[in-house]
Amino acid sequence: MEEEKLFQELLDKISVATRFDYASSLLDWDQQTQMPQGGAEGRALIFAAVKTQGFRLFTSDAIGDILRKLNKVEGSSLSPEKLLIVQRMSVIYERAKAIPPDLFEAFNVAKSKAFTIWAQAKKRSDFGLFAPTLEEIVELTRKIAECYGYESHPYDALLPDFEPGLTTDELKKIIEPLRAQLVPFVRALTEQSDKPDESLLQGHFPQDLQMKLSQEALNLLNYDFNRGRLDLTVHPFTTSVGPDDIRVTTRVSPWKIAHCLFPTMHEAGHALYEQGKDPLLKWLYLDKGISMGIHESQSRMWENMVGRSRAFWQFFYLKLMDIFPYYKNILFEDFYRAINVVKPSLIRVNADEVTYNLHIMLRAELEADLIAGDKILVKELPQIWNAKMEKYLGVSPKNDAEGVLQDVHWSSGYFGYFPSYMLGNLYAAQLFATAKKEISNLEEEIAKGNLKILLEWLRPKVHRFGLIYEAPQLLREVTGEGPNPKYWLEYIKEKFSPIYGLK
Amino acid sequence: MEEEKLFQELLDKISVATRFDYASSLLDWDQQTQMPQGGAEGRALIFAAVKTQGFRLFTSDAIGDILRKLNKVEGSSLSPEKLLIVQRMSVIYERAKAIPPDLFEAFNVAKSKAFTIWAQAKKRSDFGLFAPTLEEIVELTRKIAECYGYESHPYDALLPDFEPGLTTDELKKIIEPLRAQLVPFVRALTEQSDKPDESLLQGHFPQDLQMKLSQEALNLLNYDFNRGRLDLTVHPFTTSVGPDDIRVTTRVSPWKIAHCLFPTMHEAGHALYEQGKDPLLKWLYLDKGISMGIHESQSRMWENMVGRSRAFWQFFYLKLMDIFPYYKNILFEDFYRAINVVKPSLIRVNADEVTYNLHIMLRAELEADLIAGDKILVKELPQIWNAKMEKYLGVSPKNDAEGVLQDVHWSSGYFGYFPSYMLGNLYAAQLFATAKKEISNLEEEIAKGNLKILLEWLRPKVHRFGLIYEAPQLLREVTGEGPNPKYWLEYIKEKFSPIYGLK
Repeated sequence: MEEEKLFQELLDKISVATRFDYASSLLDWDQQTQMPQGGAEGRALIFAAVKTQGFRLFTSDAIGDILRKLNKVEGSSLSPEKLLIVQRMSVIYERAKAIPPDLFEAFNVAKSKAFTIWAQAKKRSDFGLFAPTLEEIVELTRKIAECYGYESHPYDALLPDFEPGLTTDELKKIIEPLRAQLVPFVRALTEQSDKPDESLLQGHFPQDLQMKLSQEALNLLNYDFNRGRLDLTVHPFTTSVGPDDIRVTTRVSPWKIAHCLFPTMHEAGHALYEQGKDPLLKWLYLDKGISMGIHESQSRMWENMVGRSRAFWQFFYLKLMDIFPYYKNILFEDFYRAINVVKPSLIRVNADEVTYNLHIMLRAELEADLIAGDKILVKELPQIWNAKMEKYLGVSPKNDAEGVLQDVHWSSGYFGYFPSYMLGNLYAAQLFATAKKEISNLEEEIAKGNLKILLEWLRPKVHRFGLIYEAPQLLREVTGEGPNPKYWLEYIKEKFSPIYGLK
Repeated sequence: MEEEKLFQELLDKISVATRFDYASSLLDWDQQTQMPQGGAEGRALIFAAVKTQGFRLFTSDAIGDILRKLNKVEGSSLSPEKLLIVQRMSVIYERAKAIPPDLFEAFNVAKSKAFTIWAQAKKRSDFGLFAPTLEEIVELTRKIAECYGYESHPYDALLPDFEPGLTTDELKKIIEPLRAQLVPFVRALTEQSDKPDESLLQGHFPQDLQMKLSQEALNLLNYDFNRGRLDLTVHPFTTSVGPDDIRVTTRVSPWKIAHCLFPTMHEAGHALYEQGKDPLLKWLYLDKGISMGIHESQSRMWENMVGRSRAFWQFFYLKLMDIFPYYKNILFEDFYRAINVVKPSLIRVNADEVTYNLHIMLRAELEADLIAGDKILVKELPQIWNAKMEKYLGVSPKNDAEGVLQDVHWSSGYFGYFPSYMLGNLYAAQLFATAKKEISNLEEEIAKGNLKILLEWLRPKVHRFGLIYEAPQLLREVTGEGPNPKYWLEYIKEKFSPIYGLK
């Protein structure tokens, strides 16, 4: 009983810290969707103050004391799920505690300012404009890595913010064999002469109609609009600005239909995960230190394994034709092939499922080297970026906007985040393979527009408590084995070989 | 020099508190413009935590110590303007210090919840739905009044939050002679047979075009969109979510053109005031304790003395015809008379300039009695409201939505705010009379669309440092005498007698 009381006290104390964290998420969401330019300077100070207050409250000694009392391997009277919360919060707490609040605040001021500068630099396609800011962010990130501590590589210190348990070495062990199989497969596909006709996805698609299509997709995916909303941004994202206020954003290119719908479904995957979590987790301080790989597995699953599947479009093509009658004159099969074209390209968020992981490998290597400090300099980034693009994907950015400036992550201080996307792809395939085994009529149901059947499978297995597991643990629970890239390789080979007429 | 250093330290410390206050304003703005329904419960806790943190930091002993050291009547080495800041902050500090932070937080949780409940109750026009919440707010407000302390009336304790220096008795001394002159003047106007034709303002006005017209008006008024934005809400308002991020909202009735444009210009008046303040004031903690009467003088001036003037429309009518070609067939004079119709009506925010103050008198009396505790009960409000409407204005609400539920203020805990609107009308007329004296060609310039001439007159005299003066002090500085209602009475008589053909 004493432990139950202590546990409740823990939740109460953490909840107070989390209120500030939610508020800071709103300040960030607003900065990206609503804020006028002139607000940027003040916003940086406001954001950092609120964010840091959450951090200060969370790293209080009182919370540390309770965690130490409750965190025992044996003899606890708490339920297994509560004990799991204690364990996860203990890890997050100890890491947070390693960072002095002043450094935390300085980092957050820098990030908020950097976002605006990055956005301007990207608009003007001028890396030089962003470089000094990025240097500052890298410098601060290195300091944070020192605070966390590491054995062999400073990048090791950062990875657990996004993928608890992962190290630079392990990452390499995943990347290298995967690349060894991936590169020839991409080559085999791209060498096929009968290619999908991408031009079907180009045309004139007015913004309001694209947003309508996105809305329809979100409804079909059972995204709960009573606890969220959809807005336009430069860079799509999902954020929780409250326990029951999980917002998604998307973007529109008026001439490319896929550039809005699929990001929307991607973000919906993140949001469904957050909207499905257990009420016990709703006020936990989960700013960092949860598996973003699992998080990304949800976004990638809904975006690709569902959103780019034949089954999904058997239902959704009617909606598409409804909103864009142009597609009445397009053969379903041609459309299906078009949304699954495989083609080395410049922009990660537009990359196809097969080449996507190559984009990630490039970034993971670059950021690990940047953080190492003595390997590459910020000013060398554009050049190295372009060279690696050429090497892995055989394409070359014409300018910084479609090269090194394309992603928001570094301006947000997210060093160590990128690998989550790749892991997300791998985990998604592994989870989806299990879902197909356990729901024998999954594809038929998706083809009828019944996506709830998948959501209801994910809810208790992944969404409810998933946030506080390390990825290998969760995968073992749900799929019966630890992370295994073979599922993803099988998935892409099975899916893309027939599309390209490969044997 | 010592004092300069201390003053800088004061500003720095207050600025940290103000960051949280700005963040809480964003949480509130978002709640009213963007937040999905499901977010309401969590938002109340988040809002209150952030708001209270600002309050806690501001009421710190460290700030109190510095204020005491700097606040001297004689022998200060600070500039007069800095000394003024010290004095105003000292008053605000002492009042804030009287409230225990726990009571402050409970009040803010209650307010945030109350907003959502009020909005629902208004939608359903059901005061019973809102009554228990309002009782809670009144109870908490009474507690706060006790903390502030007062001599004769608890309402005295609250008024200085919105109008420093004002008492219930003085308010009565303004209201009663004003009403004595106003009621017969309204009667004289409404008894005239040649009335303006209001139906010219009715029709079908699509939302996007009304918003466009509002945008045009804001541009003409020199509202700075780089430091602000315009959104739609149920209840128009202005809020500063940062030192350079001053947002206005408006609303649209698709069949009534005046119901969007004039509220927009009203809010623009507030925003111009905030956008014009001296950089020294930008991070001051001014949550309460500044003259909202002066604030409202700015909104009422731009809305009415400019926005409903013949001169303004000599320029702006072209824009109107551009956006709504219907007005090409309407005589300018008929339009001018229509926007200046005087007609006792139910809704304060739609009331004409002449009857508006009667709406305020009713509210001021009701809220003073509510706060007194033993005079009227919350559940009696609808009945008393309706009776007073009948008595002062000769009209009767058909339901609660157009009666006691129409205003957001009480759900926001703003008891003592309403008188500011009336005072604002009076102050606006007094300031505008001086402006006309000092800018001899003011009307000609307005008729050319040059509204900057008025703004530039207001900037140094009212906007720059106005926020930290008490109203009588500021009026003496700018107009050469203390508050005097005769200017407003002269203004309405001079303006409305010819419109109604009164001698």
